[in-house]
Amino acid sequence: MTSSFYPPQRTLMGPGPSDVNPRITQAMARPTIGHLDPLFVGMMDEMKGLLQYALQTENALTIPVSAPGSAGMETCFVNLVEAGDTVIVCQNGVFGGRMKENVERCGATAVMVQDEWGKACDPQKLEDALKAHPQAKLVAFVQAETSTGASSDVKTLTSLAHQYDCLVIVDAVTSLAGTELRVDDWGVDAIYSGTQKCLSCTPGLSPVSFNQRAIDVIKARKTAVQSWFLDLNLVMGYWGPSSSTGSKRAYHHTAPVNALYALHESLVILEEEGLENAWARHALHHKALKAGLESLGLNFVVAEADRLPQLNAVTIPAGVDDGAVRAALLNDYNLEIGAGLGPMAGKVWRIGLMGYAARKDNVLLCLSALDEVLGRMHAPVNHGDAVSAALAFYQRQ
Amino acid sequence: MTSSFYPPQRTLMGPGPSDVNPRITQAMARPTIGHLDPLFVGMMDEMKGLLQYALQTENALTIPVSAPGSAGMETCFVNLVEAGDTVIVCQNGVFGGRMKENVERCGATAVMVQDEWGKACDPQKLEDALKAHPQAKLVAFVQAETSTGASSDVKTLTSLAHQYDCLVIVDAVTSLAGTELRVDDWGVDAIYSGTQKCLSCTPGLSPVSFNQRAIDVIKARKTAVQSWFLDLNLVMGYWGPSSSTGSKRAYHHTAPVNALYALHESLVILEEEGLENAWARHALHHKALKAGLESLGLNFVVAEADRLPQLNAVTIPAGVDDGAVRAALLNDYNLEIGAGLGPMAGKVWRIGLMGYAARKDNVLLCLSALDEVLGRMHAPVNHGDAVSAALAFYQRQ
Repeated sequence: MTSSFYPPQRTLMGPGPSDVNPRITQAMARPTIGHLDPLFVGMMDEMKGLLQYALQTENALTIPVSAPGSAGMETCFVNLVEAGDTVIVCQNGVFGGRMKENVERCGATAVMVQDEWGKACDPQKLEDALKAHPQAKLVAFVQAETSTGASSDVKTLTSLAHQYDCLVIVDAVTSLAGTELRVDDWGVDAIYSGTQKCLSCTPGLSPVSFNQRAIDVIKARKTAVQSWFLDLNLVMGYWGPSSSTGSKRAYHHTAPVNALYALHESLVILEEEGLENAWARHALHHKALKAGLESLGLNFVVAEADRLPQLNAVTIPAGVDDGAVRAALLNDYNLEIGAGLGPMAGKVWRIGLMGYAARKDNVLLCLSALDEVLGRMHAPVNHGDAVSAALAFYQRQ
Repeated sequence: MTSSFYPPQRTLMGPGPSDVNPRITQAMARPTIGHLDPLFVGMMDEMKGLLQYALQTENALTIPVSAPGSAGMETCFVNLVEAGDTVIVCQNGVFGGRMKENVERCGATAVMVQDEWGKACDPQKLEDALKAHPQAKLVAFVQAETSTGASSDVKTLTSLAHQYDCLVIVDAVTSLAGTELRVDDWGVDAIYSGTQKCLSCTPGLSPVSFNQRAIDVIKARKTAVQSWFLDLNLVMGYWGPSSSTGSKRAYHHTAPVNALYALHESLVILEEEGLENAWARHALHHKALKAGLESLGLNFVVAEADRLPQLNAVTIPAGVDDGAVRAALLNDYNLEIGAGLGPMAGKVWRIGLMGYAARKDNVLLCLSALDEVLGRMHAPVNHGDAVSAALAFYQRQ
């Protein structure tokens, strides 16, 4: 006989999932009701309004896809891209590569604009690609590269793409609610995110938003969307603008009811705090963590100007055993930090300060634990002062 | 400011989601841990074993897809079907039609074998189609049609398909844990289900299983799977046989951690009860409900031999307002029963007895409430004896 599973209480400071506010897991445990129940419909309508606030958009088509961020990415690509299209993808980490995969699986051509991992996407390189590929229909890039902690300039890149008559798809998985993001002001046409980063919700859903220009492209498609599950023409019937009437909602799939309770609660918490306050909180605790990490002598992968507050990638000091350090943090402190992805595996740690995890106590726990574990392993770091450096920063505020 | 959402406690006797055992929502609310945490990996391995038990299979590739049943369906089709293939789909309700959509979005041809809604899929018609279309690669059908409550004979249909060298995809969304299902004994090649039916778990995940013959077809594909998110070549790297070692797990997407806690708990509950006991429980309470419904004078859509115990579709008596009855049940009794789907909308009710909802108290509540509401509305039914008829049945056991 198998026993029930009782996970320990970890502190999650990796690249996500991040620490979940207990209000959110409590919401998730509320009684399941039907996905066509009028009370559920009302909750969905509220959710759309809350997501519009979080994304700073009035797009009517602003909904959570019933699957993780990867499915949100795929929703954007399979709906907007058709076979034979050309899509320019700016890549500066793992997730730009995944965009390329998506483009190619739609039968389209991906023109890759490469930047070094850890750098922002370079607007000049994008402009060169736009000039060289006038047939391009779309530009796609990641606002906050979770693999490196680099932030790219959505406003500038979007504006360039529009000058060359391209639509824009933005990956906001790690940026939403952590750093400035203004879908309407910046003119982003299609965007996807995840719940398990700076919204601090449980993983499994992907907020997406499409403006009218994007919807027009979807409606003018020559071919059917290759995914039935992600076809927005069908999803719109379920989540669409008419959902408040109740009567016109077309059954598409059974919504993940309890997961949506959780997302609703996380968005209520965000509204209570205020979006700009949440951005400021991430910046504050990042600076404290940075003071401590620098005191230890750890170096950031990303230059200060392009650095995300919510994802701190630092180089592992020479001779230090990556796996042993992370295992000690997990086993002795119940603290999870992230490993490097792809070519950065074994070379960097990714320390997340996302959503509910962006707190003073987490910063101090992380620095204490890293300091002790690195000291215990005789790592070549400046042992002993990390916590003091962070506390000194907080006291100066 | 938006308030937190507090759903009422409903009794869910529609086509799903079904009543969720409180042990499952409690499990879901446990602390989120990382999707690469060694303890989470251990839970995933247990889950595979539990799913193998539920499906009666030793297939190594037996995993929950991180999205609802529709995505489980799509996982089967996009991995096994390539452009130009011919797929025979037996349709006897809504979900066979969705299979056709999936086939066509893969660029393949769907040969439809139609049976009347409410009847089982006819093996003779399938054999005729197999003879007429020797190029067919796959046969797909639904074991338990959620739109009508009809059960089809998986063993016979699968055996026929194999005689003509076709692989078989079975939709077990509503059958799993509710009625007999033996993947290995019956030779099913690929199967998908949902969590929100007879597993009585929260909606949002889709267990799938593939045998070696199906995996060989996937590995021999000439083209890439059109969905990145659902590509089993990638998903296998995350959930695959090597997952117990921990070291070889490749990051694919962030697993819906808390939803998986819930599924794990629902499978633990199933193991505790015993699969055959669960099947017998569904049959028992179905018979009690049937006694009551027949006492009311309501007629089943499906002939007795093909009737599913867990999904009871009955014809709405002439002159009765479908919406008014369902609204009264919901508002006055917190009881949800299901409406008809597609051409059956307004003509039938679908009363679910799925998983945790298949209980004596639910049967009695449903019959009492229906009896009172139909009486109140002066429906042409035999008012007053439904509960007694069910109780008399229980007393005879």
